[in-house]
Amino acid sequence: MVRKEQFGNKEISPVATITGLTVRDIRIPTSDSLTGSDAMNPDPDYSAAYVELQTDHPDGLAGHGLAFTIGRGNELCAAAVEAWKPFVIGLDLDDIRADMRAFWRRLTGDSQLRWVGPEKGTVHMASAAIINAAWDLLAKLEGKPLWKLLADMSAEELVACIDFTYISDLMTPEEAVELLRKKETGREAREQEMLDRGFPAYTTSTGWLGYEDEKIRDLCRQAVEDGWSHVKIKVGADLQDDIRRSSIIREMIGPDRELMFDANQVWDVAEAIENMKHLAEFSPLWIEEPTSPDDVLGHAAIARAVAPIGVATGECCQNRVLFKQFLQAEAIQFVQIDSCRLGGVNEVLSVLLMAAKCGVPVCPHAGGIGLCEHVQHLAIFDYIRVGCSLENRVIEYVDNLHEHFENPVTMRDCRYLPPQAPGYSTTMVEASLDHYEFPSGTAWRDR
Amino acid sequence: MVRKEQFGNKEISPVATITGLTVRDIRIPTSDSLTGSDAMNPDPDYSAAYVELQTDHPDGLAGHGLAFTIGRGNELCAAAVEAWKPFVIGLDLDDIRADMRAFWRRLTGDSQLRWVGPEKGTVHMASAAIINAAWDLLAKLEGKPLWKLLADMSAEELVACIDFTYISDLMTPEEAVELLRKKETGREAREQEMLDRGFPAYTTSTGWLGYEDEKIRDLCRQAVEDGWSHVKIKVGADLQDDIRRSSIIREMIGPDRELMFDANQVWDVAEAIENMKHLAEFSPLWIEEPTSPDDVLGHAAIARAVAPIGVATGECCQNRVLFKQFLQAEAIQFVQIDSCRLGGVNEVLSVLLMAAKCGVPVCPHAGGIGLCEHVQHLAIFDYIRVGCSLENRVIEYVDNLHEHFENPVTMRDCRYLPPQAPGYSTTMVEASLDHYEFPSGTAWRDR
Repeated sequence: MVRKEQFGNKEISPVATITGLTVRDIRIPTSDSLTGSDAMNPDPDYSAAYVELQTDHPDGLAGHGLAFTIGRGNELCAAAVEAWKPFVIGLDLDDIRADMRAFWRRLTGDSQLRWVGPEKGTVHMASAAIINAAWDLLAKLEGKPLWKLLADMSAEELVACIDFTYISDLMTPEEAVELLRKKETGREAREQEMLDRGFPAYTTSTGWLGYEDEKIRDLCRQAVEDGWSHVKIKVGADLQDDIRRSSIIREMIGPDRELMFDANQVWDVAEAIENMKHLAEFSPLWIEEPTSPDDVLGHAAIARAVAPIGVATGECCQNRVLFKQFLQAEAIQFVQIDSCRLGGVNEVLSVLLMAAKCGVPVCPHAGGIGLCEHVQHLAIFDYIRVGCSLENRVIEYVDNLHEHFENPVTMRDCRYLPPQAPGYSTTMVEASLDHYEFPSGTAWRDR
Repeated sequence: MVRKEQFGNKEISPVATITGLTVRDIRIPTSDSLTGSDAMNPDPDYSAAYVELQTDHPDGLAGHGLAFTIGRGNELCAAAVEAWKPFVIGLDLDDIRADMRAFWRRLTGDSQLRWVGPEKGTVHMASAAIINAAWDLLAKLEGKPLWKLLADMSAEELVACIDFTYISDLMTPEEAVELLRKKETGREAREQEMLDRGFPAYTTSTGWLGYEDEKIRDLCRQAVEDGWSHVKIKVGADLQDDIRRSSIIREMIGPDRELMFDANQVWDVAEAIENMKHLAEFSPLWIEEPTSPDDVLGHAAIARAVAPIGVATGECCQNRVLFKQFLQAEAIQFVQIDSCRLGGVNEVLSVLLMAAKCGVPVCPHAGGIGLCEHVQHLAIFDYIRVGCSLENRVIEYVDNLHEHFENPVTMRDCRYLPPQAPGYSTTMVEASLDHYEFPSGTAWRDR
């Protein structure tokens, strides 16, 4: 691939310009099977506002990203993508690559659009989809999977991607560079370890709330057979039901495997503390989303009360400012970054760095549609360059909807193997897009 | 007006059903004059996603509410209103009135739409517009201005409007009833006082960032002549500039009037603390929005550092969960509720109650378009029934865009006089709607 800098000549034409953006409303009717059901979300239809950035690159390169939603509201993310469209059309990839921080600010900072966030909700999720599509494009241009593109960047290049606005009281650019430099020892060995063994995962497929006890039993048996060391179940609809299901699962997986609980925000603070007293006997590793994702002080109170059980949150954590506070307040012991809710790779980098500084492990939220494909890159990069440990690190895994991606995740021995294809693994299969487009695709037309 | 309960008969036909909802994208090109310019928002076009709830009431009653935005993104709030439309069409006003908490949850809690918030950003602002339109409708139905409708409700009726989810660790329904009962002493006298004298206000019209020094001097002279006791100016673009402008304004208004600063989120935490050292000599009452509206712990650090100068925030405070934490952390000394960003009257009630419990004054955010019309009702009700004090209470006032409302605010001696017309003062003038509709109205068509 011809790269401009190889010529050392700024006057030659740019490598590629973004010439178009399209967004499609893609929805999978997952609520038909109650897959994904939890106490807050009884009937999600896993959906994606799917973005394509087109370029004038001679190879016809395109970048893909998505906003993950659970059905209604997907059209709002798509509309928000359209609102950001004028800010990305016409940009040269070289300029984006040369100043990723400026690109990020351009795609999140428009003062008028910012008002309806700011940096949260549909406008921020839409920014993320576009920003991730740009990273997909840059990685394809380099011929590298995203994790490798990031792993090969210098400390300074990585830090230059991050907007430190509102987080400088926890971490400055200088501290970030220093941290990354310190962690450079052993990076080749860690990269090789990832290539050889992959990144550990946990399964959420055993305990969706909509499942009957017998189905849970079968799924647990299967999970143990398949070699899972960590299993997560949904709680929060009814305490007695939670106790019964936890008892079944703990019995099925034995004392040595880790069990995690996920309450999906249904409790108030005192309720979370009280209910966890009854669930502590099942020795969970963490309680996830015990209450409102906005409640830093509430999570801190819960964390103090339920220790040594950890508190985890992140899938609805709106931006780096919230994660900063969760870390400052020692409110969470597991950082569950969401690749599509945070403002794309750039904002994720800032959270990985803050978590590393505070010594808190990052265990990305996944599942949904495409989230596993995204976060494997982030966790693998985190291991090679930032967190540099596998202790208490597991990526969520759900064996669902991967067939809609051109480069689906590859699992071996319950671990994510590093993707090899260039890009961010975010390109969807054209036939899936056509079939599930809402409301015109064949999956929806006849309903 | 015939009321169902006057007949004591549940079988008669409902007083009115919501039969339709329309939303219009209304934008005023205020950026032409730099009115509203600040360090974060250089060129706002004050806008409204304007909602009308139609009914089958024989008098043709309709309810109005709006999402306030500053231009681009207004279409996203309008789209979000459309997304909530199926949740409101067909509801009977009697049922809404009978269980306002359930109505609020219905218009904020749909699990799929909740994902793209939750309870924040465009979906929450859209919920607010619809919920406020329903309150406008109920007040019109009762033939009362909203403040009076609320002031006449019992403690139990008011508390029954509030969703205590995620705030019960600061306030329970029982505590809320008790607080309201304690404050009942003197309510008639306070109502009379409001009718006689009105609620105090402050002006933000003197110090928009886009104004030249000479214009600021003239506006200050005018403000003093007009009798304003409190004046707010924008800061944050450049410290030396802020010092010069503050010096001019303090000189013009003298030592006895209150001066407030508004940084509109442009500083990081350490920056805010440092800059306020240089601005403290002008003895401001508060520093507003010193940093990210999401940063509870950051505001707390700033508040400790700048005391006795107060910290104020709220216009971008997304929901009651954030306000709860600002109060718990003693991070703000002035609660600036936003009538259109919080989830309508119901969520505002919860914040008024939490602020009263914590002894923190509420000084509503206003200006924009229609915000003065909204918040006068809330502040007057707060004085009569909840906060019950005028100490350190002032409503923001900007003398702009009131002509677009059928019942614009009435000011006398720099105070808001209680509105007399039935409803929430949110009904806009039809000619304004037609002229400023984006992009088809005459105000936009020729640009």
